[in-house]
Amino acid sequence: MCKTRVLSAPGAGVPFEKTTIERRELRPDDVLIEIKFSGICHSDINSVNGEWGGGMFPMVPGHEIAGIVREVGSDVTKFRVGDRVGVGCFVDSCGECEYCLKGEEQYCTKGAVQTYNSLDYDGNPTYGGYSQKIVVTERFVVRIPDNLELDVASPLLCAGITTYSPLKHWNVGPGKKVAILGVGGLGHLAIQYAHALGAEVTVLSRTIDKKSEALSLGADHYFATSDSETFTALAGRFDLILNTVSSNLDVDAYLSLLRVDGTLVNVGAPGRPDQYNVFSLLLGRRSIAGSLVGGIRETQEMLDFSAEHGIAPKIEVISADQVTEAYERVLRSDVRYRFVMDVSTL
Amino acid sequence: MCKTRVLSAPGAGVPFEKTTIERRELRPDDVLIEIKFSGICHSDINSVNGEWGGGMFPMVPGHEIAGIVREVGSDVTKFRVGDRVGVGCFVDSCGECEYCLKGEEQYCTKGAVQTYNSLDYDGNPTYGGYSQKIVVTERFVVRIPDNLELDVASPLLCAGITTYSPLKHWNVGPGKKVAILGVGGLGHLAIQYAHALGAEVTVLSRTIDKKSEALSLGADHYFATSDSETFTALAGRFDLILNTVSSNLDVDAYLSLLRVDGTLVNVGAPGRPDQYNVFSLLLGRRSIAGSLVGGIRETQEMLDFSAEHGIAPKIEVISADQVTEAYERVLRSDVRYRFVMDVSTL
Repeated sequence: MCKTRVLSAPGAGVPFEKTTIERRELRPDDVLIEIKFSGICHSDINSVNGEWGGGMFPMVPGHEIAGIVREVGSDVTKFRVGDRVGVGCFVDSCGECEYCLKGEEQYCTKGAVQTYNSLDYDGNPTYGGYSQKIVVTERFVVRIPDNLELDVASPLLCAGITTYSPLKHWNVGPGKKVAILGVGGLGHLAIQYAHALGAEVTVLSRTIDKKSEALSLGADHYFATSDSETFTALAGRFDLILNTVSSNLDVDAYLSLLRVDGTLVNVGAPGRPDQYNVFSLLLGRRSIAGSLVGGIRETQEMLDFSAEHGIAPKIEVISADQVTEAYERVLRSDVRYRFVMDVSTL
Repeated sequence: MCKTRVLSAPGAGVPFEKTTIERRELRPDDVLIEIKFSGICHSDINSVNGEWGGGMFPMVPGHEIAGIVREVGSDVTKFRVGDRVGVGCFVDSCGECEYCLKGEEQYCTKGAVQTYNSLDYDGNPTYGGYSQKIVVTERFVVRIPDNLELDVASPLLCAGITTYSPLKHWNVGPGKKVAILGVGGLGHLAIQYAHALGAEVTVLSRTIDKKSEALSLGADHYFATSDSETFTALAGRFDLILNTVSSNLDVDAYLSLLRVDGTLVNVGAPGRPDQYNVFSLLLGRRSIAGSLVGGIRETQEMLDFSAEHGIAPKIEVISADQVTEAYERVLRSDVRYRFVMDVSTL
């Protein structure tokens, strides 16, 4: 066992406090990681506020973890002390079901163990990356390429894979017309991935405010959704719309922008149900879908792809004392585009 | 020009009357068909009642047409006088767009010309199969195999292709678990197709009333959706759910029955929007989709497949004087499973 400093929420909506927790004794296949940076994800806010129900408190959020391996268990083969590594949204899975065997652990039949706000298979609560150390089975640790800085890499472990995975799954590439809906923590990465994959990328955002930034990230076109003519001009245009916005949508309006066999993929989830007219689907054999992060193998692929193509989130590094303020700023979309906590400040 | 007897609705919701209309002079690529049977589709009822807006009156419904070729234009090569033929939901398309070139005329970019309640490319209204004769471009006429009776074949031209096409598009076959939701005009055909394609077929229907019939049509399993335990027992089971029911659904409940990457495909459309929780999609990369009839090439394939596998709708043949009563019975689901009008009674 080893003690580590953490930022912990004692209850739903209760302010964070700095405290310490114990990390488990290293098992043979575990690595001990000294966390350097922990990205702040919108879902951290939902979780500590108990908005999704079933929150386990005290809660140490954080599933965008970047750091250095400091100890390895006796059977570890993938990593050595000093390696630069990351941990994302889950830290264990059954390893035996068809999805685990395919490398899609996020869909594990038994249920993957989430990095925080979850129980591991021994029944112990998991605590995440707002912390200086974490112990993780090597199978759920990925390597951060040398030319990716650790602070910049951390948001890729959730925001990066969440956008990369559906673009790959729906075969985005040359000849495909893709729309990225929303330019935020997820959207600004999705633009870069879709562009690097060779697609023609259109960005849809409420206003024209982010146009120059979106174009600089690789977008070919930019339209404001507050302008109703956008929906006329772009009717039937896209093979895929990746919706990175978590608020409720006029789903039918967006479906009308899809070509035959086009798909509207959601990676964020609003609190209330969305609604659609079935005719919007029938008339072009269109689909509405969702996608949840990605598997470990694909997470490694995403990191390597990011390093190769110079893809990185734009971040603002904050101290542990600024997390509450950062949450407020995330909620009013006042961040371009992702906060990352320097956990040495804990 | 030739006169033909029809059943015509003078206005939205106004009772049918027997009258005559003119069919156009044969063009070089036209065939004149003596209609023998015309199936009655639920959408005929929506159309004559003006429920979908934009109804063109007087209206002669009917897009499940089976008959005999009586005359052919000078350039016709596909058919000869005496051939047994069918016409489905559309009678023309641009022929040049990518969808027409792929044989998916139902998604024609210019807009396919519907068999009735539509304007052809010359601006003339189209009149459907509640009629003794029809003139159609040979490209939109299909051949009815010799071992399919004309009365039985007629509902295949809409109900058959509407269910066959999505099963093929979503690769239903051996090793796939498919649920057919609803045992009606569409559902009872979908069961037969899914079974003949080699899938494991589960039928979901409100009550257990249709169990023995569903099993006799080829279902492997049958569950009543009024029993809430059905949703527990079948959680995460299906690759595809084909929803043949036109009323609003508890979409989230049905999505929970899908495996990872599973799809809920709608072929009917309720009048009001459906709603869903995005989490239902995210958690298994699931999709909600829709499908609209099928192209001409696939319609021919469906007829040949039906003949080869002995697939046929169960029908009740009625006279023209019984159509209004038949509509009432369709609306209260009092038909097993499809009405077909003998148009010689016009």
